[in-house]
Amino acid sequence: MIEKELKNKLDNLTKPVNSLGQLEEIAFKMGVIQNTISPKLPKDKRVYVFTSDHGIVEEGVSAFPKEVTAQMVFNFLNNGAAINVLANHVNAKVFVVDAGTDFDFEEKDNLIIKKVGKSSKNFLKEKAMTYSEAEKAIEYGKEVAEKAINEGADLLALGDMGIGNTTTATAINHALGISIEKIIDIGTVIDDTTLEKKKNVVVQACKNHSPFENPIDVLSKVGSFCFGEMVGFMLKCAEKKIPFVIDGYPVTSAAHLAYKIDPSIKNYMFVGHVSAVKGHKVILEEIGLNPILNLNMRLGEGTGAVLSFTIIESAIKILNEMASFDDANVSKGQE
Amino acid sequence: MIEKELKNKLDNLTKPVNSLGQLEEIAFKMGVIQNTISPKLPKDKRVYVFTSDHGIVEEGVSAFPKEVTAQMVFNFLNNGAAINVLANHVNAKVFVVDAGTDFDFEEKDNLIIKKVGKSSKNFLKEKAMTYSEAEKAIEYGKEVAEKAINEGADLLALGDMGIGNTTTATAINHALGISIEKIIDIGTVIDDTTLEKKKNVVVQACKNHSPFENPIDVLSKVGSFCFGEMVGFMLKCAEKKIPFVIDGYPVTSAAHLAYKIDPSIKNYMFVGHVSAVKGHKVILEEIGLNPILNLNMRLGEGTGAVLSFTIIESAIKILNEMASFDDANVSKGQE
Repeated sequence: MIEKELKNKLDNLTKPVNSLGQLEEIAFKMGVIQNTISPKLPKDKRVYVFTSDHGIVEEGVSAFPKEVTAQMVFNFLNNGAAINVLANHVNAKVFVVDAGTDFDFEEKDNLIIKKVGKSSKNFLKEKAMTYSEAEKAIEYGKEVAEKAINEGADLLALGDMGIGNTTTATAINHALGISIEKIIDIGTVIDDTTLEKKKNVVVQACKNHSPFENPIDVLSKVGSFCFGEMVGFMLKCAEKKIPFVIDGYPVTSAAHLAYKIDPSIKNYMFVGHVSAVKGHKVILEEIGLNPILNLNMRLGEGTGAVLSFTIIESAIKILNEMASFDDANVSKGQE
Repeated sequence: MIEKELKNKLDNLTKPVNSLGQLEEIAFKMGVIQNTISPKLPKDKRVYVFTSDHGIVEEGVSAFPKEVTAQMVFNFLNNGAAINVLANHVNAKVFVVDAGTDFDFEEKDNLIIKKVGKSSKNFLKEKAMTYSEAEKAIEYGKEVAEKAINEGADLLALGDMGIGNTTTATAINHALGISIEKIIDIGTVIDDTTLEKKKNVVVQACKNHSPFENPIDVLSKVGSFCFGEMVGFMLKCAEKKIPFVIDGYPVTSAAHLAYKIDPSIKNYMFVGHVSAVKGHKVILEEIGLNPILNLNMRLGEGTGAVLSFTIIESAIKILNEMASFDDANVSKGQE
């Protein structure tokens, strides 16, 4: 049993038992994933930032105009965004996945075009997408992950960027049964009137579309393309036993959907950080995983996820590089 | 005013205002310390692990035998401890400062002998040290910091290791007026009977020695040599305007003393992490600083402090490397 061997190794390192807290938990989980007491450090770290436009912005739920989605894609490609700076800091590559932005980009090495459509529909008035489009989004996401893994990626993060994404995330979580009061919050800064509108839009949309049959039905009725592709990406990572790190509230809401489809994905999933967005902590508790960082961030793009890479790596090093009590001739404490 | 220029620069980076949370606060503070909107990355990062023996262990307050203090020093010198692994991970050098261990070490490049004595006294029965020894410990700590800074160190962390250090830390904080119930906790794992003994020892010792005249009087009566040297180290860093990072409960208790001597040290102090030791959060609130990491660690040695170096560096990079809205032609949101 690798679990027992890992626990034994950790407990014999020159430190009081469990005194490295979450670092020990991360090291343990990495050991289980790789089925070894000496897990390898990742060699090919990547973050995939999923982006699409959300029809729901027609309802005036965001402070930023819709054009910002495409403008930010160019900012990613030009290395000017926060995710570029932080990914570079931890030696990870940034890939942008266009799951359905209302702009015709040209494919590049670091820009993957996987458009399900040019924008999801306004889900207050109609389904965000058809059921078969939802399935297609999941399939596309799986393809993106599979290609990454085939190319050698061994530690993956997901990010999300798209004006309207927290409204969509909130609708997904509410449709999955979470009370609106627990999760309604601003994404970027909006005033109280806009926040009230955002809440009413989510509640009314979920009423209009209920009952929800299954997670794919939720995605189809109140989701959007980037959420679908993130679901597929996570399912494929878990299938291939490759660890992946989720980011803030939108990515975690996609993880919520993926977890409902296959709870075992949790074994390969790390939570990069808990954001300042109110609903994030709530959904993490639903899934039952602890965040690594807690820096009061609320940006998205995968920023919290990539920053945690360095903590994950440090945890692996603890397992591989520390001396044991025997090695170091240090007396053990009372047990 | 550098503060206004820094705020203006941060608010014009391509992200919603304040969305990088604590990273922005760290970047801002580093900018103020260096008096520039483009703070330099540290080039010479170091952690100083202060160690001494504590006479109070005679009372049976720890799970580990006293010999472990010296054994762990050898583990540090042989690169086998957690602090070695984590410091190496963030490219920082480890220095051990023998402030008063009951063992005759030979000085080495990375082992600084600054013994005030061979162990503090058992403060349940008598003063831990004389007032002039307390002053000497502070002076020694200042000398260690001054040498480091003269050699080029530009980001410093403090760690502490010594069997009995959390009992001493608790006595210092209680003597400074913090209620015992808020701070009594295990350091390394001990049973309930030992914990009760630890509490009684602290309460009785503080009664015996009260009233306390000033922070140096506290140090002299219920402190120990490593605490005194850490106080001096911090005071010197602040005087030289060099940022320093504190670690867990013992280091933070030394910071509590140093803060009482000179509250302005707060402007140069970062809190690496909040540990799982109950009193740590309480003392951080007294000082009024937020921790960077929260990984449920309770090891000490500077482990939480050095791990935060990478977050501090990422914050500096955000300020220096991100594009502004104008640079990137991204539309700003409503203000």
